[in-house]
Amino acid sequence: MYEGIVQELIDELGRLPGIGPKSAQRIAFHILQTESFDVSRLASVLVEVREKVRFCEICGNVTQEVTCSICRDPRRDATSICVVEEAKDVVAIERTREFKGFYHVLGGAISPIDGIGPDNLRIRQLMTRLADNTVQEVIIATDPNLEGEATATYLTRLLSSLEIKVTRLASGLPVGGDLEYADEVTLGRAFEGRRTVS
Amino acid sequence: MYEGIVQELIDELGRLPGIGPKSAQRIAFHILQTESFDVSRLASVLVEVREKVRFCEICGNVTQEVTCSICRDPRRDATSICVVEEAKDVVAIERTREFKGFYHVLGGAISPIDGIGPDNLRIRQLMTRLADNTVQEVIIATDPNLEGEATATYLTRLLSSLEIKVTRLASGLPVGGDLEYADEVTLGRAFEGRRTVS
Repeated sequence: MYEGIVQELIDELGRLPGIGPKSAQRIAFHILQTESFDVSRLASVLVEVREKVRFCEICGNVTQEVTCSICRDPRRDATSICVVEEAKDVVAIERTREFKGFYHVLGGAISPIDGIGPDNLRIRQLMTRLADNTVQEVIIATDPNLEGEATATYLTRLLSSLEIKVTRLASGLPVGGDLEYADEVTLGRAFEGRRTVS
Repeated sequence: MYEGIVQELIDELGRLPGIGPKSAQRIAFHILQTESFDVSRLASVLVEVREKVRFCEICGNVTQEVTCSICRDPRRDATSICVVEEAKDVVAIERTREFKGFYHVLGGAISPIDGIGPDNLRIRQLMTRLADNTVQEVIIATDPNLEGEATATYLTRLLSSLEIKVTRLASGLPVGGDLEYADEVTLGRAFEGRRTVS
Protein backbone atom coordinates (compact mmCIF):
# COMPACT_ATOMS: atom_id res chain seq x y z
CA MET A 1 0.00 0.00 0.00
CA TYR A 2 1.17 3.49 -0.84
CA GLU A 3 0.54 6.65 1.12
CA GLY A 4 -2.87 8.30 0.62
CA ILE A 5 -3.33 9.88 -2.76
CA VAL A 6 -0.87 7.65 -4.65
CA GLN A 7 -2.85 4.56 -3.64
CA GLU A 8 -6.05 6.40 -4.58
CA LEU A 9 -4.71 7.03 -8.09
CA ILE A 10 -3.61 3.39 -8.42
CA ASP A 11 -7.13 2.29 -7.39
CA GLU A 12 -8.78 4.68 -9.85
CA LEU A 13 -6.53 3.56 -12.72
CA GLY A 14 -7.15 -0.10 -11.82
CA ARG A 15 -10.86 0.43 -12.53
CA LEU A 16 -10.18 1.13 -16.21
CA PRO A 17 -10.65 -1.82 -18.57
CA GLY A 18 -7.55 -3.94 -19.21
CA ILE A 19 -5.47 -2.28 -16.48
CA GLY A 20 -4.39 -4.60 -13.67
CA PRO A 21 -2.78 -3.58 -10.37
CA LYS A 22 0.77 -3.77 -11.79
CA SER A 23 -0.02 -1.57 -14.80
CA ALA A 24 -1.92 0.86 -12.58
CA GLN A 25 1.16 1.19 -10.34
CA ARG A 26 3.41 1.67 -13.35
CA ILE A 27 1.18 4.40 -14.78
CA ALA A 28 0.89 6.12 -11.38
CA PHE A 29 4.69 6.34 -11.10
CA HIS A 30 4.88 7.58 -14.66
CA ILE A 31 2.42 10.36 -13.73
CA LEU A 32 4.61 11.34 -10.76
CA GLN A 33 7.52 11.87 -13.10
CA THR A 34 5.60 13.58 -15.91
CA GLU A 35 5.49 17.36 -16.40
CA SER A 36 2.60 18.94 -14.45
CA PHE A 37 1.43 20.53 -17.67
CA ASP A 38 1.07 17.17 -19.45
CA VAL A 39 -0.82 15.65 -16.52
CA SER A 40 -3.23 18.58 -16.48
CA ARG A 41 -3.84 18.18 -20.20
CA LEU A 42 -4.66 14.47 -19.81
CA ALA A 43 -7.00 15.31 -16.92
CA SER A 44 -8.80 18.03 -18.84
CA VAL A 45 -9.19 15.91 -22.00
CA LEU A 46 -10.75 13.17 -19.84
CA VAL A 47 -13.34 15.56 -18.44
CA GLU A 48 -13.90 17.29 -21.79
CA VAL A 49 -14.54 13.99 -23.61
CA ARG A 50 -17.09 12.96 -21.03
CA GLU A 51 -18.81 16.36 -21.21
CA LYS A 52 -18.76 17.05 -24.94
CA VAL A 53 -18.95 13.71 -26.69
CA ARG A 54 -22.36 12.21 -27.26
CA PHE A 55 -23.98 9.71 -29.56
CA CYS A 56 -25.27 10.65 -33.03
CA GLU A 57 -29.08 10.94 -33.00
CA ILE A 58 -29.32 9.13 -36.32
CA CYS A 59 -26.77 6.29 -36.24
CA GLY A 60 -25.49 6.11 -32.65
CA ASN A 61 -21.86 6.79 -33.59
CA VAL A 62 -19.79 9.08 -31.31
CA THR A 63 -19.83 12.79 -32.14
CA GLN A 64 -19.46 16.24 -30.64
CA GLU A 65 -22.50 17.51 -32.61
CA VAL A 66 -26.12 16.36 -32.75
CA THR A 67 -25.29 14.05 -35.67
CA CYS A 68 -21.93 12.48 -36.59
CA SER A 69 -19.65 13.53 -39.46
CA ILE A 70 -20.65 10.47 -41.52
CA CYS A 71 -24.41 11.11 -41.23
CA ARG A 72 -23.78 14.77 -42.16
CA ASP A 73 -21.78 13.85 -45.29
CA PRO A 74 -23.95 14.34 -48.42
CA ARG A 75 -21.51 12.35 -50.59
CA ARG A 76 -22.27 9.06 -48.80
CA ASP A 77 -24.50 6.48 -50.48
CA ALA A 78 -27.94 6.68 -48.85
CA THR A 79 -29.06 3.35 -50.28
CA SER A 80 -27.03 1.16 -47.93
CA ILE A 81 -26.65 0.91 -44.16
CA CYS A 82 -23.99 -1.11 -42.40
CA VAL A 83 -25.10 -2.35 -38.96
CA VAL A 84 -22.31 -2.66 -36.35
CA GLU A 85 -22.17 -3.32 -32.61
CA GLU A 86 -19.97 -0.45 -31.45
CA ALA A 87 -18.68 2.93 -32.64
CA LYS A 88 -15.16 1.50 -32.82
CA ASP A 89 -16.38 -0.90 -35.52
CA VAL A 90 -17.32 2.15 -37.63
CA VAL A 91 -13.71 3.35 -37.42
CA ALA A 92 -12.41 -0.12 -38.36
CA ILE A 93 -14.66 -0.32 -41.44
CA GLU A 94 -13.92 3.28 -42.48
CA ARG A 95 -10.23 2.37 -42.47
CA THR A 96 -10.85 -0.24 -45.23
CA ARG A 97 -12.34 2.48 -47.55
CA GLU A 98 -14.57 -0.31 -48.94
CA PHE A 99 -17.90 1.09 -47.79
CA LYS A 100 -19.47 4.37 -48.85
CA GLY A 101 -22.93 4.10 -47.24
CA PHE A 102 -24.17 5.02 -43.78
CA TYR A 103 -23.83 3.16 -40.48
CA HIS A 104 -26.10 2.09 -37.67
CA VAL A 105 -24.50 1.42 -34.28
CA LEU A 106 -26.53 -1.03 -32.18
CA GLY A 107 -24.72 -0.30 -28.93
CA GLY A 108 -23.85 -3.95 -28.29
CA ALA A 109 -25.10 -7.43 -29.21
CA ILE A 110 -27.84 -9.75 -27.96
CA SER A 111 -26.47 -11.57 -24.91
CA PRO A 112 -28.98 -13.26 -22.58
CA ILE A 113 -26.18 -13.97 -20.04
CA ASP A 114 -25.51 -10.24 -19.68
CA GLY A 115 -29.23 -9.48 -19.74
CA ILE A 116 -29.01 -7.72 -23.12
CA GLY A 117 -32.03 -8.39 -25.34
CA PRO A 118 -33.15 -6.77 -28.63
CA ASP A 119 -34.92 -4.00 -26.68
CA ASN A 120 -31.61 -2.86 -25.17
CA LEU A 121 -30.13 -2.29 -28.62
CA ARG A 122 -30.88 0.49 -31.12
CA ILE A 123 -32.96 -1.84 -33.31
CA ARG A 124 -36.18 0.21 -33.22
CA GLN A 125 -34.22 3.22 -34.48
CA LEU A 126 -32.88 1.07 -37.35
CA MET A 127 -36.39 0.06 -38.37
CA THR A 128 -37.45 3.73 -38.39
CA ARG A 129 -34.52 4.58 -40.70
CA LEU A 130 -35.59 1.83 -43.12
CA ALA A 131 -39.24 2.97 -43.22
CA ASP A 132 -38.97 5.45 -46.14
CA ASN A 133 -37.65 2.79 -48.61
CA THR A 134 -34.47 4.73 -49.48
CA VAL A 135 -32.25 1.94 -48.18
CA GLN A 136 -31.87 -1.00 -50.55
CA GLU A 137 -29.22 -3.02 -48.71
CA VAL A 138 -28.54 -3.65 -45.02
CA ILE A 139 -25.07 -5.10 -44.38
CA ILE A 140 -24.92 -6.86 -41.04
CA ALA A 141 -21.38 -6.45 -39.65
CA THR A 142 -21.77 -7.69 -36.07
CA ASP A 143 -18.83 -9.55 -34.53
CA PRO A 144 -18.21 -13.14 -35.74
CA ASN A 145 -18.79 -14.55 -32.22
CA LEU A 146 -21.77 -16.11 -30.40
CA GLU A 147 -23.46 -12.81 -29.47
CA GLY A 148 -22.74 -11.22 -32.85
CA GLU A 149 -24.13 -14.23 -34.72
CA ALA A 150 -27.26 -14.30 -32.53
CA THR A 151 -27.80 -10.61 -33.23
CA ALA A 152 -27.26 -11.14 -36.97
CA THR A 153 -29.79 -14.00 -37.01
CA TYR A 154 -32.34 -11.90 -35.10
CA LEU A 155 -31.90 -8.94 -37.47
CA THR A 156 -32.05 -11.14 -40.59
CA ARG A 157 -35.43 -12.54 -39.49
CA LEU A 158 -36.75 -9.12 -38.55
CA LEU A 159 -35.68 -7.58 -41.86
CA SER A 160 -36.93 -10.48 -44.04
CA SER A 161 -40.45 -8.97 -43.94
CA LEU A 162 -39.16 -5.81 -45.69
CA GLU A 163 -38.24 -5.56 -49.40
CA ILE A 164 -34.57 -4.98 -48.57
CA LYS A 165 -31.48 -7.00 -49.47
CA VAL A 166 -29.77 -8.18 -46.29
CA THR A 167 -26.11 -9.26 -46.41
CA ARG A 168 -23.59 -10.45 -43.84
CA LEU A 169 -19.80 -9.93 -43.91
CA ALA A 170 -17.89 -12.98 -45.17
CA SER A 171 -16.29 -15.33 -42.65
CA GLY A 172 -13.09 -17.05 -43.72
CA LEU A 173 -9.33 -17.20 -43.41
CA PRO A 174 -7.69 -14.01 -42.19
CA VAL A 175 -5.44 -12.56 -44.90
CA GLY A 176 -1.77 -13.08 -44.11
CA GLY A 177 -2.50 -16.00 -41.79
CA ASP A 178 -1.38 -19.63 -42.09
CA LEU A 179 -4.03 -22.17 -43.08
CA GLU A 180 -2.72 -24.76 -40.62
CA TYR A 181 -3.21 -22.39 -37.70
CA ALA A 182 -6.83 -21.55 -38.54
CA ASP A 183 -9.38 -23.03 -36.11
CA GLU A 184 -11.85 -25.61 -37.44
CA VAL A 185 -14.85 -23.29 -37.40
CA THR A 186 -13.05 -20.58 -39.41
CA LEU A 187 -11.67 -23.16 -41.86
CA GLY A 188 -15.17 -24.69 -42.18
CA ARG A 189 -16.61 -21.25 -42.92
CA ALA A 190 -13.88 -20.64 -45.50
CA PHE A 191 -14.94 -23.85 -47.31
CA GLU A 192 -18.63 -22.97 -47.12
CA GLY A 193 -17.98 -19.53 -48.56
CA ARG A 194 -15.53 -20.63 -51.27
CA ARG A 195 -15.70 -18.67 -54.54
CA THR A 196 -15.28 -19.78 -58.15
CA VAL A 197 -12.12 -18.14 -59.46
CA SER A 198 -11.96 -19.52 -63.02
CA MET B 1 -9.42 8.26 -36.79
CA TYR B 2 -12.12 9.54 -34.48
CA GLU B 3 -13.64 12.98 -34.39
CA GLY B 4 -11.63 15.66 -32.57
CA ILE B 5 -11.55 15.23 -28.84
CA VAL B 6 -12.05 11.44 -28.81
CA GLN B 7 -8.91 10.98 -30.90
CA GLU B 8 -7.12 13.46 -28.65
CA LEU B 9 -7.98 11.34 -25.59
CA ILE B 10 -6.86 8.15 -27.36
CA ASP B 11 -3.54 9.86 -28.20
CA GLU B 12 -3.07 11.08 -24.62
CA LEU B 13 -3.83 7.64 -23.15
CA GLY B 14 -1.51 6.01 -25.69
CA ARG B 15 1.39 8.00 -24.22
CA LEU B 16 1.05 6.21 -20.85
CA PRO B 17 3.46 3.30 -20.31
CA GLY B 18 2.16 -0.12 -21.37
CA ILE B 19 -0.91 1.27 -23.16
CA GLY B 20 -1.00 0.59 -26.90
CA PRO B 21 -3.44 2.08 -29.42
CA LYS B 22 -6.03 -0.71 -28.91
CA SER B 23 -6.07 -0.34 -25.11
CA ALA B 24 -6.20 3.44 -25.44
CA GLN B 25 -9.27 3.13 -27.66
CA ARG B 26 -10.91 0.69 -25.25
CA ILE B 27 -10.29 2.99 -22.28
CA ALA B 28 -11.55 6.03 -24.22
CA PHE B 29 -14.85 4.26 -24.97
CA HIS B 30 -15.09 3.15 -21.37
CA ILE B 31 -14.71 6.81 -20.32
CA LEU B 32 -17.54 7.80 -22.69
CA GLN B 33 -19.84 5.39 -20.92
CA THR B 34 -18.70 6.12 -17.36
CA GLU B 35 -20.60 8.44 -14.99
CA SER B 36 -19.38 12.05 -15.33
CA PHE B 37 -18.75 12.09 -11.61
CA ASP B 38 -16.33 9.13 -11.77
CA VAL B 39 -14.43 10.64 -14.70
CA SER B 40 -14.05 13.95 -12.83
CA ARG B 41 -12.72 12.09 -9.81
CA LEU B 42 -10.09 10.27 -11.89
CA ALA B 43 -9.09 13.57 -13.50
CA SER B 44 -8.76 15.39 -10.19
CA VAL B 45 -6.78 12.57 -8.55
CA LEU B 46 -4.36 12.68 -11.51
CA VAL B 47 -3.75 16.39 -11.03
CA GLU B 48 -3.67 16.13 -7.24
CA VAL B 49 -1.06 13.35 -7.28
CA ARG B 50 1.17 15.38 -9.57
CA GLU B 51 0.76 18.48 -7.36
CA LYS B 52 0.98 16.97 -3.90
CA VAL B 53 3.23 13.95 -4.11
CA ARG B 54 6.94 14.51 -3.84
CA PHE B 55 10.02 12.54 -2.92
CA CYS B 56 11.15 12.06 0.69
CA GLU B 57 14.13 14.33 1.44
CA ILE B 58 15.87 11.55 3.34
CA CYS B 59 15.28 8.33 1.40
CA GLY B 60 13.71 9.36 -1.93
CA ASN B 61 10.49 7.36 -1.37
CA VAL B 62 7.18 8.95 -2.46
CA THR B 63 5.36 11.01 0.15
CA GLN B 64 2.95 13.90 0.61
CA GLU B 65 5.11 15.38 3.42
CA VAL B 66 8.74 16.48 3.53
CA THR B 67 9.78 12.99 4.66
CA CYS B 68 8.00 9.67 4.08
CA SER B 69 6.04 7.67 6.67
CA ILE B 70 8.86 5.11 6.99
CA CYS B 71 11.56 7.70 7.68
CA ARG B 72 9.24 9.33 10.24
CA ASP B 73 8.59 6.04 12.06
CA PRO B 74 10.65 5.95 15.32
CA ARG B 75 10.09 2.18 15.74
CA ARG B 76 12.17 1.32 12.66
CA ASP B 77 15.68 -0.07 13.10
CA ALA B 78 18.16 2.77 12.41
CA THR B 79 21.12 0.40 12.08
CA SER B 80 20.19 -0.95 8.63
CA ILE B 81 19.40 0.61 5.29
CA CYS B 82 17.99 -1.27 2.32
CA VAL B 83 18.99 0.26 -1.04
CA VAL B 84 16.43 -0.11 -3.84
CA GLU B 85 16.03 1.28 -7.36
CA GLU B 86 12.47 2.60 -7.22
CA ALA B 87 9.81 3.57 -4.70
CA LYS B 88 7.70 0.61 -5.86
CA ASP B 89 10.44 -1.71 -4.61
CA VAL B 90 9.92 -0.26 -1.10
CA VAL B 91 6.26 -1.29 -1.26
CA ALA B 92 7.20 -4.79 -2.48
CA ILE B 93 9.68 -5.29 0.39
CA GLU B 94 7.32 -3.80 2.99
CA ARG B 95 4.76 -6.40 1.92
CA THR B 96 7.12 -9.21 3.00
CA ARG B 97 7.29 -7.81 6.60
CA GLU B 98 10.86 -9.16 6.71
CA PHE B 99 12.68 -5.87 6.99
CA LYS B 100 12.39 -3.35 9.82
CA GLY B 101 15.12 -0.86 8.90
CA PHE B 102 15.06 2.21 6.66
CA TYR B 103 15.24 2.48 2.87
CA HIS B 104 17.21 4.43 0.33
CA VAL B 105 15.69 4.86 -3.13
CA LEU B 106 18.33 5.39 -5.83
CA GLY B 107 15.88 6.55 -8.49
CA GLY B 108 17.05 3.97 -11.05
CA ALA B 109 20.09 1.86 -11.85
CA ILE B 110 23.37 2.42 -13.64
CA SER B 111 22.74 2.02 -17.37
CA PRO B 112 25.31 3.44 -19.79
CA ILE B 113 22.95 2.78 -22.75
CA ASP B 114 20.33 5.08 -21.23
CA GLY B 115 23.00 7.55 -20.18
CA ILE B 116 22.46 6.88 -16.47
CA GLY B 117 25.68 6.92 -14.46
CA PRO B 118 26.30 6.93 -10.68
CA ASP B 119 25.93 10.73 -10.61
CA ASN B 120 22.34 10.49 -11.84
CA LEU B 121 21.37 8.30 -8.88
CA ARG B 122 20.92 9.29 -5.23
CA ILE B 123 24.27 7.74 -4.24
CA ARG B 124 25.80 10.89 -2.75
CA GLN B 125 22.77 11.20 -0.44
CA LEU B 126 23.30 7.57 0.63
CA MET B 127 26.95 8.26 1.55
CA THR B 128 25.83 11.28 3.62
CA ARG B 129 23.35 9.09 5.53
CA LEU B 130 26.12 6.59 6.32
CA ALA B 131 28.54 9.27 7.60
CA ASP B 132 27.46 9.28 11.26
CA ASN B 133 28.21 5.55 11.75
CA THR B 134 24.69 4.66 12.99
CA VAL B 135 24.14 2.27 10.09
CA GLN B 136 25.80 -1.12 10.50
CA GLU B 137 24.38 -2.95 7.50
CA VAL B 138 23.54 -1.86 3.97
CA ILE B 139 21.37 -4.36 2.12
CA ILE B 140 21.61 -3.92 -1.64
CA ALA B 141 18.26 -4.84 -3.16
CA THR B 142 18.63 -3.63 -6.75
CA ASP B 143 16.95 -5.68 -9.50
CA PRO B 144 18.58 -9.02 -10.43
CA ASN B 145 19.22 -7.85 -14.00
CA LEU B 146 22.19 -6.37 -15.84
CA GLU B 147 21.67 -2.78 -14.66
CA GLY B 148 20.80 -3.83 -11.12
CA GLU B 149 23.88 -6.04 -10.85
CA ALA B 150 26.12 -3.28 -12.22
CA THR B 151 24.71 -0.88 -9.65
CA ALA B 152 25.19 -3.44 -6.87
CA THR B 153 28.80 -4.01 -7.88
CA TYR B 154 29.46 -0.26 -8.00
CA LEU B 155 27.90 0.28 -4.55
CA THR B 156 29.74 -2.71 -3.05
CA ARG B 157 33.09 -1.26 -4.13
CA LEU B 158 32.17 2.21 -2.95
CA LEU B 159 31.03 0.97 0.48
CA SER B 160 33.97 -1.41 0.99
CA SER B 161 36.05 1.55 2.25
CA LEU B 162 33.59 2.06 5.14
CA GLU B 163 33.32 -0.12 8.25
CA ILE B 164 29.84 -1.30 7.25
CA LYS B 165 28.54 -4.78 6.48
CA VAL B 166 27.21 -4.87 2.91
CA THR B 167 24.79 -7.64 1.85
CA ARG B 168 22.93 -8.46 -1.36
CA LEU B 169 19.54 -10.20 -1.63
CA ALA B 170 19.85 -13.91 -2.42
CA SER B 171 19.37 -15.09 -6.00
CA GLY B 172 17.85 -18.52 -6.49
CA LEU B 173 14.79 -20.51 -7.45
CA PRO B 174 11.50 -18.65 -7.11
CA VAL B 175 9.32 -20.28 -4.43
CA GLY B 176 6.43 -22.23 -5.98
CA GLY B 177 8.26 -22.65 -9.29
CA ASP B 178 9.38 -25.81 -11.06
CA LEU B 179 13.11 -26.55 -11.08
CA GLU B 180 13.01 -27.78 -14.69
CA TYR B 181 11.60 -24.45 -15.89
CA ALA B 182 14.27 -22.32 -14.18
CA ASP B 183 16.74 -20.69 -16.56
CA GLU B 184 20.41 -21.72 -16.37
CA VAL B 185 21.61 -18.52 -14.74
CA THR B 186 19.01 -18.71 -11.96
CA LEU B 187 19.70 -22.41 -11.42
CA GLY B 188 23.44 -21.68 -11.37
CA ARG B 189 22.90 -18.98 -8.75
CA ALA B 190 20.76 -21.35 -6.70
CA PHE B 191 23.68 -23.84 -6.65
CA GLU B 192 26.21 -21.15 -5.78
CA GLY B 193 24.04 -19.92 -2.91
CA ARG B 194 23.13 -23.38 -1.53
CA ARG B 195 22.77 -23.60 2.25
CA THR B 196 23.65 -26.38 4.67
CA VAL B 197 20.41 -27.68 6.11
CA SER B 198 21.61 -30.50 8.36
